[in-house]
Amino acid sequence: MSLLAAIADVGVDRRRGGYSRHGFDSAELELRSWFTAEAAARGLDVETDRNGTLWAWWGAPGDGAIVTGSHLDSVPGGGAFDGPLGVTAALEAVDLLRGRGFQPGKPLAIAVFPEEEGGRFGVACLGSRLMTGALSADKALALTDSNGVSLAEAVRAAGLDPAGLGHDRVALGRIGTFVELHVEQGRGLVDLAAPVGVASSILAHGRWRFTFTGEGNHAGATLMGDRRDPMLPAAALIAAARRAASAVEGARATVGRIVPNPGGTNVIASTVDVWLDARADDDARTRAVVAAITAAAAAAASDEGCTVAVTEESYGDTVVFDPALRDDLAAHLGGVPALPTGAGHDAGILAAHVPTAMLFVRNPTGVSHAPSEYAEPDDCAAGSAALADVLEHLSR
Amino acid sequence: MSLLAAIADVGVDRRRGGYSRHGFDSAELELRSWFTAEAAARGLDVETDRNGTLWAWWGAPGDGAIVTGSHLDSVPGGGAFDGPLGVTAALEAVDLLRGRGFQPGKPLAIAVFPEEEGGRFGVACLGSRLMTGALSADKALALTDSNGVSLAEAVRAAGLDPAGLGHDRVALGRIGTFVELHVEQGRGLVDLAAPVGVASSILAHGRWRFTFTGEGNHAGATLMGDRRDPMLPAAALIAAARRAASAVEGARATVGRIVPNPGGTNVIASTVDVWLDARADDDARTRAVVAAITAAAAAAASDEGCTVAVTEESYGDTVVFDPALRDDLAAHLGGVPALPTGAGHDAGILAAHVPTAMLFVRNPTGVSHAPSEYAEPDDCAAGSAALADVLEHLSR
Repeated sequence: MSLLAAIADVGVDRRRGGYSRHGFDSAELELRSWFTAEAAARGLDVETDRNGTLWAWWGAPGDGAIVTGSHLDSVPGGGAFDGPLGVTAALEAVDLLRGRGFQPGKPLAIAVFPEEEGGRFGVACLGSRLMTGALSADKALALTDSNGVSLAEAVRAAGLDPAGLGHDRVALGRIGTFVELHVEQGRGLVDLAAPVGVASSILAHGRWRFTFTGEGNHAGATLMGDRRDPMLPAAALIAAARRAASAVEGARATVGRIVPNPGGTNVIASTVDVWLDARADDDARTRAVVAAITAAAAAAASDEGCTVAVTEESYGDTVVFDPALRDDLAAHLGGVPALPTGAGHDAGILAAHVPTAMLFVRNPTGVSHAPSEYAEPDDCAAGSAALADVLEHLSR
Repeated sequence: MSLLAAIADVGVDRRRGGYSRHGFDSAELELRSWFTAEAAARGLDVETDRNGTLWAWWGAPGDGAIVTGSHLDSVPGGGAFDGPLGVTAALEAVDLLRGRGFQPGKPLAIAVFPEEEGGRFGVACLGSRLMTGALSADKALALTDSNGVSLAEAVRAAGLDPAGLGHDRVALGRIGTFVELHVEQGRGLVDLAAPVGVASSILAHGRWRFTFTGEGNHAGATLMGDRRDPMLPAAALIAAARRAASAVEGARATVGRIVPNPGGTNVIASTVDVWLDARADDDARTRAVVAAITAAAAAAASDEGCTVAVTEESYGDTVVFDPALRDDLAAHLGGVPALPTGAGHDAGILAAHVPTAMLFVRNPTGVSHAPSEYAEPDDCAAGSAALADVLEHLSR
């Protein structure tokens, strides 16, 4: 049985389809236990750092380590590959290197970061942002999930000390080079007929929450002219996001989450929360798209007698991966292509601090963050082999 | 302490504000126990019928009974008055009649109907629809709440036999006249400077669920031109509902509930469910409004490469309350005004079967189905006194 098949039953979401595995929930904790056992079975020493990231060490932990890994959480109703493939490929790469009789000349580790998708607490790349200081412990501890459980409570329930969360210079300082393998989230490798590629860059990317406030009232008894219904400007925002992103080359804007309060069929909402995910090639374009959407939302809110409050929940500028490392790895793998991506990754957070690269595995449909996300077994094997080659090359 | 104050702590919704009390949930069951105790304290015999409606009898149950009452459930995050005021006013009316030394010449009962708002199982006036046969037992038993709990499971947990649900000719046949007191859900009585009025009619009213299906995918990695995002036609429906209802005199159309699946911030939804509440003065106008909205939704879905499926979850034609009874009660109360309403009620379901009337109590802001729903204590007292007068008049 393949490593991915071994976890196929964990965190299945019968309602949405696919998987719902979120930071420090029962499914993610079960996967962390599974990873710890798999690493131990390979003679790797597993430690948990202050922010809940797992580190499985081949050899003694130390500076200048070659680190690979990814995450085990998913978006709500996500696919089987986004995250876990980078973890299983790392374990398989260790197996391949062992089979070759290879002994690393540098410390080598597999890292598993918690809550990369932000599916529970709303901040993507939570573990790597905490480790690098990109997110402060105070802000993180105040995050709550949709049931009102705080991150502090969630990590405590998982056996961590909330007081330990935050910038971890020791853990970060040990990383010499970081390489993350990931299923491609697009059709770039399909078009190039290549099973594996390397990443060139990640789009600038942020999340914004718009809270529209109107007047809750009865859906039958309130005349149309008497309404201040926050669903109207929320709908205008959705339309504006499509217009604004379509007008800027390479930009993307998405509303995938909207929560009216109270959310009754026969009730005019009093407030509506809308989350906007926006990305573009650079900071200026991303900001311009969000500004256009915000202006449209504000105008629509005003027309309806509503107000709107905008909160930037996260933002990351464009990431360009280390060009020398990228070219070195692409050449070492026989000249595989380099591709940009619109998706965020822990590798994108680490790239500001250490030489970082990514390997992508071909996705036949390009679909990701959905149950139909897929990669062929042969392509996954090619990915694991490429990762083994890269780790051998870097840790000689 | 007033009767309403005694239940002010039951079913408080800290997240939405106001109250969330739904059919056969813990809050509604607690309120039913409270009602049973209050009725017993007044020497009324309480029975639960096959559909879960409570009947508190003054005197022996029998045909030709004069029945008053309302419901104890709320919309999600609803107010304190919609439903409970009709129940507490009925108890107070009994106290007033007892104080007058009145002995009813006909059986007199207070009825408490379950799940009037449809806040849990999606069908408004569930108890009265079941009793009158307007909703079949088969359809009702298949209803599920948002946690996947079926109505059959919910009533069983409440101590009812699911096999007993359905058309109850015995319970319905005993009602000679039904009178429901309710807080007004509009500003009609404010404009007329009257604390109490009678109802003339209820708008035609239905609920429709629109399910838009597109292609779930990654919010960052999917180009704008490659998307089939069901949030776009969902937003178009919201805008179309406003346009269509505003174009027809007296019509109302509302989207208060929208659920994208999977509902992640960084995920293009694969499906979006939108509930439409639409009402107008008559069947033809209501159908025309819904047809215009449906056509706009279908066109927007097609433009986006999505599909849309429409389900009529409930529908009721215009209700005109018994004109002779209405005029008799208005005159008996000293010439109080008669008003139409856009809100549905159990009285509207019963009106097709027995002579039925409603009393409204003034609402200073007109707001309803929201935490700020209100009626002044003096107006509530005037309502209870008017109800006592009406019951005395009818049950002599």
